[in-house]
Order: sequence, then C-alpha cells, then structure tokens
Amino acid sequence: MQFEITKDFIEEVAQLIATKDSTQLVELLKDLHPADIAEVLDDLSFDEAVFVMRLLDSETTSDILEELEDDTRARVLEQLTPKEIAQEIDELETDAAADIIAELPDERKDRVIAHLDDKEHAKDIVDLMRYDEDSAGGLMGKELVSVNENFTVKHCVREMRRQAQEIGEVYIVYVVDDEEVLKGRLSLKSLLTANANTAVKDIYKGDIISVKTTDHADEVAQIMQKYDLFVVPVVDQLGHLVGNITIDDVVDYIKDEADKDYQMAAGLTEDVVADDSIFELVKGRFPWLALGLFGSIISVNIISGFGSAMTNYKELFFFTPLIAAVAGNVGVQSSAIMVQGLANNLIKGSMWHRLFKELSISLLNGSILVMIVVVFSHLFGLGWLFSLSIAISLLTVIIIASLIGTFIPLILNRIGIDPALATGPFITTSNDIFGLFIFFYLSKLILGF
Amino acid sequence: MQFEITKDFIEEVAQLIATKDSTQLVELLKDLHPADIAEVLDDLSFDEAVFVMRLLDSETTSDILEELEDDTRARVLEQLTPKEIAQEIDELETDAAADIIAELPDERKDRVIAHLDDKEHAKDIVDLMRYDEDSAGGLMGKELVSVNENFTVKHCVREMRRQAQEIGEVYIVYVVDDEEVLKGRLSLKSLLTANANTAVKDIYKGDIISVKTTDHADEVAQIMQKYDLFVVPVVDQLGHLVGNITIDDVVDYIKDEADKDYQMAAGLTEDVVADDSIFELVKGRFPWLALGLFGSIISVNIISGFGSAMTNYKELFFFTPLIAAVAGNVGVQSSAIMVQGLANNLIKGSMWHRLFKELSISLLNGSILVMIVVVFSHLFGLGWLFSLSIAISLLTVIIIASLIGTFIPLILNRIGIDPALATGPFITTSNDIFGLFIFFYLSKLILGF
Repeated sequence: MQFEITKDFIEEVAQLIATKDSTQLVELLKDLHPADIAEVLDDLSFDEAVFVMRLLDSETTSDILEELEDDTRARVLEQLTPKEIAQEIDELETDAAADIIAELPDERKDRVIAHLDDKEHAKDIVDLMRYDEDSAGGLMGKELVSVNENFTVKHCVREMRRQAQEIGEVYIVYVVDDEEVLKGRLSLKSLLTANANTAVKDIYKGDIISVKTTDHADEVAQIMQKYDLFVVPVVDQLGHLVGNITIDDVVDYIKDEADKDYQMAAGLTEDVVADDSIFELVKGRFPWLALGLFGSIISVNIISGFGSAMTNYKELFFFTPLIAAVAGNVGVQSSAIMVQGLANNLIKGSMWHRLFKELSISLLNGSILVMIVVVFSHLFGLGWLFSLSIAISLLTVIIIASLIGTFIPLILNRIGIDPALATGPFITTSNDIFGLFIFFYLSKLILGF
Repeated sequence: MQFEITKDFIEEVAQLIATKDSTQLVELLKDLHPADIAEVLDDLSFDEAVFVMRLLDSETTSDILEELEDDTRARVLEQLTPKEIAQEIDELETDAAADIIAELPDERKDRVIAHLDDKEHAKDIVDLMRYDEDSAGGLMGKELVSVNENFTVKHCVREMRRQAQEIGEVYIVYVVDDEEVLKGRLSLKSLLTANANTAVKDIYKGDIISVKTTDHADEVAQIMQKYDLFVVPVVDQLGHLVGNITIDDVVDYIKDEADKDYQMAAGLTEDVVADDSIFELVKGRFPWLALGLFGSIISVNIISGFGSAMTNYKELFFFTPLIAAVAGNVGVQSSAIMVQGLANNLIKGSMWHRLFKELSISLLNGSILVMIVVVFSHLFGLGWLFSLSIAISLLTVIIIASLIGTFIPLILNRIGIDPALATGPFITTSNDIFGLFIFFYLSKLILGF
C-alpha cells in the first residue's frame, strides 16, 4: 500500500534529525518506498536531507537520488565526491544514470565515469550520453531481455533467467537474429503455453512496433499512446536492437511538456512551481511582464497619436480596454487551438483551407459580438455613425486578431520554433497593439477627425 | 514497424471505396494496426467509413471501434442494431466495453447488454458500469491473472496458462488469499528463477501498491507516476482484488486533463480541436468571448464615470490599455501557478504564508515595472505628481491583480469547483475591471479631479 506523507510525519522526521536519533530514524524510514523518502527529503532543509542520506544504504539512496527534485539533487550531489557519486550510479539503471551524469558540471562527469565499477554498465551509460535528450536515444535504457530466434523455448527460458538476474523487472522479451537485428517479441503468454522444444522462430510475434534512436521524443510519446504500448524497442539505422523505452519515462515527458505549454501560455518563462522560492518565482514571472509592459507602452503611444479625437469623440477612449480585451481573447483562443493541433498532429489541409475556416469562425463570432456592442453603444448614447464606426472597426480587429493567433504559431512551427511560444502574453500584447491601431485608424477614416 | 498515414494513402482508400473494389481494399488494410485503420476512417466521410467497417471481421472492427474518435464512433454505432453492437462488445476488453456501452443512449444500453453472448463477460461489464467515470473503478478492467498464495510454482504456471488464454497480454501476476484479498505480486523474474515446487507464499512480493475503487482518477495518475507503475491493482473497501488499471488508460486521462486545462486557460468552453467543424469551433469559442465582452462593457462604464478627468488629465485615458494588460498578465501568471500547484499537490503551508509570498513577488516585480513606467511617463512629458500618481496606482493594481489570481483558484478549489476555471479570460476580465477602477479611483484621490 502506498504511504501518505503528512505534515506530522515530516515533523517527526525533523525531530529525530534534531535529536540525532539515527536508530529510530532508520526504523521509521525502512519500509518506505524510495519515492516517498525522496518526497520527505524535498520537504526538509538541505542539511537535514544530507543527514538522512548518510544513514541509508547505497541501494536505497541511489533510488532516492533518482526521485529527488532537480535542484535538491544538484545540491546533494555537490556534497559528494566523484567516487561516492559513482557508487550511487552503479546501482542505477542506465537511463537514470545517464540523465544524472548529464546534469553534473562538465569537469566532474569524466571523473565520475572513471570511478564506475561495472565496466559494462559504464560503457552503456557513456553510449546513452551520445544521444540528444529529446530523442528516442535520450529516453531509452539499455536494460532489456533478448533471445535469438534460433533458440528453443527451453534455451530461451534459461537465457532469460540469466539476463533477468541483472535487471529489475521483465515485461517483454525481444527476439533478434544473429546480427542483433530486431525481429519481434515473445509474449509471456506464448512462453507459458508453448512446448519446451518449440523454436522461438515458430512462436514469436513479428509485428513489433519500434522507434529509431533519432526519432523525437514527441513522436515516441505519440506512438506509445496510439498503440497503447508499455515498452517500445529502439533500433539504430540498421535495425539493430540498441535499447528500449518504458512508458514511465514517456509519461514524465508528456507531463513535463504539458506543464511547459501551460506555463508558456500563462507567460512564465522558467519552470516555476508554487513552492519555489520568491526569487525563483520573480525570475520566472518578470520577463513576460516586462515585455508586456513595453508592448503596452507602444499602445499608449499609438493612442496618444489619435489624441485630437478627444474633442469630438472622447467616447472612443472609453472603448480602448474593450478593444484590447476582445483582440486578446480572440487571439489566445485561435493560437491555443493551433498550438494544440500542431502538438497532436491534427493540422491537416492547406493554408488556404485554414484561412477560410478561421475567417468564417471570426466573422460568425465577430458579428454577434458586434451586434451586442452596437446595442450597448446606442444605450450609451452614441450616434448611429459613431456606433457604425465602432462596429466596423471592432469586426476588423476580431478578424485580424484571429488571423494573427492562427498564423503566428503556424509560421513559428514551420521555421522550427516551438509554436507554444506564441500564446499568452505574446499574442495578447501584439493583438493589443494591432487592435488599438486598427480601431483608431478606421474610426478616423469613418468619423473624420 | 508503425505505419505512417499519408494523404496519398487516404486518397487511395477513398478511390477503392468509390470503385467498390472490396478485394483490393481488404488487401490494402489487412496488415494495418486497428489504431491506424481508425485514423484512416476518421479522415474519411461517414459513408466511406461505414463501407470499410462492413468489410472487416468483427475482431478487427471491435478494435477499430475502440480507437475511433468519440463522434465518429457514435455515428457508426447509430447504424448498427443492438445485436451487432453486442457482437463487437463481445470482442472487447471489459474496460473498453463498459466505456462504449456507457456512451450509448439509455434505451439501447440494456438491449445491447441482453445480447451479449459471454455471460461472464457481460457480468463484468455491468459491474464496471457502476463506478464513476473519474474513479479508479471507472478506469479499471477486469482482465488480470491471479493465483492463490498456497499454490506451488508449478500449479501457479498451470493456472496462469489457463487464465492467460482468455486475456490479451500478461504483465503481472497477482497473489491473493482464499478470500480473494490481494496479498502481493509475482514477478516474471521470480517465476523464471524459482523451483517448480516452491510455494508461491515463499516467493511473492508483499509490498504491492494498490488503489481503491473509489479513489479519484487524479490520485491514480499521481500514484502510477510517482512509483513508475505500468499496472496497478484495484481493491474494494475490504481489500478484495476486483480489477486493475493499465498505464495506457492513465496516459489518456493525463493527456485529456492537460488538454482541458490548457483549453480552459485559453477560454475555450468545449473540447474543440483544430479539425472540428466551423460550427463546433464557434460554439466552443463564443461563450468566453461574450463574457469577456460583457466584462469589458463594465470597464467602459467605469472609465466613462471618470470622464471629468479629460479636461486636465487626458493622458490617463492613454494609459488604460497598459493598466488592463499589466493587470491581466499578472493575474494569469498567479492563477496558472496556483492551478498547476493544486493539480500537482504542491500547495503547502498556510494561507498567510501564501499571502506573504504573493505580496513579496508582486511588490518586487511591480516595483521594477513601475520604475520603467515612471521613466516613460517622464519622457512622455507628464509632470512629477502625475507620474507619481500613475506609479502608486499601477503598483496597487499589480498587487491586487496578483492576489485575485492567487486566491480565486484557492477558493474555488476549497468549495469543490475545478480551479482551472479561474484562468484565462475569467482572470483577465475581472482584473481589467478591478484594475481600471483602482487606477482611476486612486488617480482621482491623488490628482484631485
């Protein structure tokens, strides 16, 4: 059963650390899952966390290390010698090991690797470090069980037994040929039901879905989701089986990407969370606020350029927040739909088709909104020409805002920039500027001031 | 290897349907994964999709049905008799079967269930339909392999073989006692390495993590992510093993929730995607636009209430979009951090602590922003008192906006409403209103108009 970490529990741990009661502390933590201990450590002060780490055996601490939050881990690792880090790494699976080494400062990386005891393990880790973090190669681990297609079931079980001893859990058995080229997979079910002398060749399933080392992590995530896979084998350009990716790593990736997109849409530049320090939160929030402010200063200048309208059409200036808000809302909706569509590979059809669709939507929504505004401006006591002017300029603003919201993500995506950048403050700020300019310019043309 | 669905391929399929060339069509599709065929069908017209479905055997069509998009599936099912639907359902795993039946109109549900051939399967499906969609019970399936703790390894393998015949894939073997209470799990590894006469009791792992039928799907997702689980057993209140949840269902859930939060933040009320029809997109976008507009109309009224300031302080009206933009951006950042923190269970500490933190952040960010604005307003030719007035009112607006952004999600969460509702247009609109009122009201106090 999982364990719920309560405030009381954290306090109990802190108390035991304060009184240096190591025996009680080890007793208290010994049945906890490493992920739970990591969560406790993340909640303690740094010195307290290091105190606890020193009490536990290296099998447990290596698992804890893997589960700690990035900044806590970085600080803990700073306290350890390269040799101590190497001892932790020796206990870890290759993918976690490569990730943790990659986070170290460059000068420590080589020294840690030199201290690794298991040379085969070290070779695998170094091999994994070649790959780009966001590629299938960067996500995969080297731990897998594979058998030759020419084995019999009996031979195969013996071989699996040998390989399984070295790795944590076996979910799937890969079948390869003499050249280590991936041929298919053996299900536990077929192993259980087959005769001991049957050849693997005769019972394996050849319709295996695999990814290439160079495939992007997004693609891996999409494939695993689409085909409901728990594990996917990774092959090199020649089809050799070089590793496999388990769904837990992909789940973390999907979650991180979703969080990142959400934060970008909200104008947060760093990966900040509610319990970060005040300084980190300021750093994560300031840049977009500043950019938004500079954008707004441009808006102020644009409006002041039409200051002469104040004599006869002062009501125009009451409408500026309305124009800016509508332009912003329309733009954010359009861009969010595009960003999500691009991320999920749902953008089909030509640019012209997209243009037609977006124009229709904004014309439809815009017309109803404009009617509401016209009724209001009439009640507000504005003349018909004035209301007509507001109607025409607001409709234009809505159409332009929706086109900006639609096409900026498309263009960014085409030139290889993450389209999610073009959401939130970016779209609202640029739409404020364009929207206000269009509104005043068209009003000037129609009303003549 | 997975298959990439190209435009050319879709056209080829459409061509073969047009010429009613069934033999060629079956030949073309026979090696495709059902998930790929479903993707092809989603891209075809409805009549074309039905034509293809009629050509394929029920094992394939049931898998396709499971993978189709909701609206396509609903339309396909409308064309089938309850008996035909029951035939498809008979081929599906219990969790997918229960989900599909739940989507049917009420009067068809019972008729489909009555037609199910496999009575054991039908019982399981009906049992699953009792649970809330967003609970562990609603996510779980009945397909699992369990053995009694008193079995020997040999007996156990025989039993697994029998049970495995009826289910698709075996990843984990559960161990239960005579009362069907979950005791632990057997790893493939321990089965491979144990002697045939060893008792299961002596080799199973008892530290199994499980969830209760009534646990919320969010909790299940968090547990599976935290402990890196592929499958998690589900027990009832008395600890009896009643089903299990596989990670693929949880991945779909995580993805859907992330998409929903993102769309809420962008002011989309329905689950719309880029390739939905124009009508659906209008329907998904209009409500928040309309609410935003009504909010803006309030803003227009507030500003016009301060119209007397136009004589001496007309520049105040040039600054309104700046005030609204800054208030909106600050509010969205604060609320996004809270919404994400609440979703990931990261909000710790008291309300007072939260208040202090948010005040500090907004004071820090606000002070720098205000300095920029003061420099600008000076360059813009405004007097010192005027600049001071703008500085004080802008700083107040920033602080209030950040508090609104922080506490509205917290309050919604406390009264049981999804806090994600309080992002995007909701926060920007309410902050526009409050921000503009505060700005003009304070300016009036300081400048005296």
